[in-house]
Amino acid sequence: MTELTESVSRLINEFARLPGIGKKSAERLTYFVLRMHRNEALAFADAIRDVKDNVRYCRDCYNLAETEECAICRDPKRDRQILCVVEQPRDLMALEQTGVYRGLYHVLLGRIAPLEGIGPDQLTIDALVRRVREGSFKELVMATNPTVEGDGTTLYISNLLSEMPAPIRITRLARGITSGSVLEYANKEILSDALTGRREF
Amino acid sequence: MTELTESVSRLINEFARLPGIGKKSAERLTYFVLRMHRNEALAFADAIRDVKDNVRYCRDCYNLAETEECAICRDPKRDRQILCVVEQPRDLMALEQTGVYRGLYHVLLGRIAPLEGIGPDQLTIDALVRRVREGSFKELVMATNPTVEGDGTTLYISNLLSEMPAPIRITRLARGITSGSVLEYANKEILSDALTGRREF
Repeated sequence: MTELTESVSRLINEFARLPGIGKKSAERLTYFVLRMHRNEALAFADAIRDVKDNVRYCRDCYNLAETEECAICRDPKRDRQILCVVEQPRDLMALEQTGVYRGLYHVLLGRIAPLEGIGPDQLTIDALVRRVREGSFKELVMATNPTVEGDGTTLYISNLLSEMPAPIRITRLARGITSGSVLEYANKEILSDALTGRREF
Repeated sequence: MTELTESVSRLINEFARLPGIGKKSAERLTYFVLRMHRNEALAFADAIRDVKDNVRYCRDCYNLAETEECAICRDPKRDRQILCVVEQPRDLMALEQTGVYRGLYHVLLGRIAPLEGIGPDQLTIDALVRRVREGSFKELVMATNPTVEGDGTTLYISNLLSEMPAPIRITRLARGITSGSVLEYANKEILSDALTGRREF
């Protein structure tokens, strides 16, 4: 297109590669950057660069970190006898925001998804098994997503760990109706989870 | 939040400043950048930087350009007797994509908006008057947005130009029903524009 300068169309293309951003949004964002103060735009560019330069995975748990160990693994106040296994750092973040869990984490960096060609080897399952074997964890809280693939990953890991000499207690997140929802709109699966998992009042 | 590294939360904040991107989207985009190849992420950062470093306004028409003159002003095949006035470079782009218009443009870089404190002095109206006075334009196509402010800007400019010694023909974009729309859903204003502007069949 003759009417676009090369830098402008390149930035539109870069924005359009981000998830959930179409061609029109990419154009709008590009015009926004064009009208930003120079310093603000450069701060944005630097923030992208810094994330790639500074952020790495925690040596132990594969959470995001800017040092060898992440802030949670470094925190002396965390309970080192309980380990929560999640798929992604953003799951960890969501759990942390509840403030309910005070143990450590292990981030798998994905889930087993045969259809996408993702096997156990591409995840951090080896490191998890090593941590469990060498550590003194009393409980493993499986917090993978409640999907076919998340459940499959949890099953795979619990099979692997049940073969260990000193078996560990493995739990998973409760399933049932969600707080604030309406019973009549819950589907069969949700309701059968809620019935099966019912607790003393 | 202890669970976020400093670089990660900075990038989330930067994304959240963009229009139409809330906190949750900003987080999702940041995680996407974290999972991008390093080279891709750096290309994105460079594209932002390059837009600020390379793109400026055309000396004559204030379209976006990477040289002193924009691609349209430089193009010898454009009709130099007709000038189309738009609010923003993106309006120019939308008109160019039709392929119907072959004249030159003038970008106002905004519209007169007293409520936002934007007066004629903050736009490129002076430069427009100078171009019209010094050029040999036969027609001025006013293509500001069909809003109160766009119409007001067009009125202001046509008053200004009517005082010139050799008055120029001033037109504006046709208004009426939009192709592909349904008559019964058009509002009163659209229908009265369509009736007033009716043409021989």
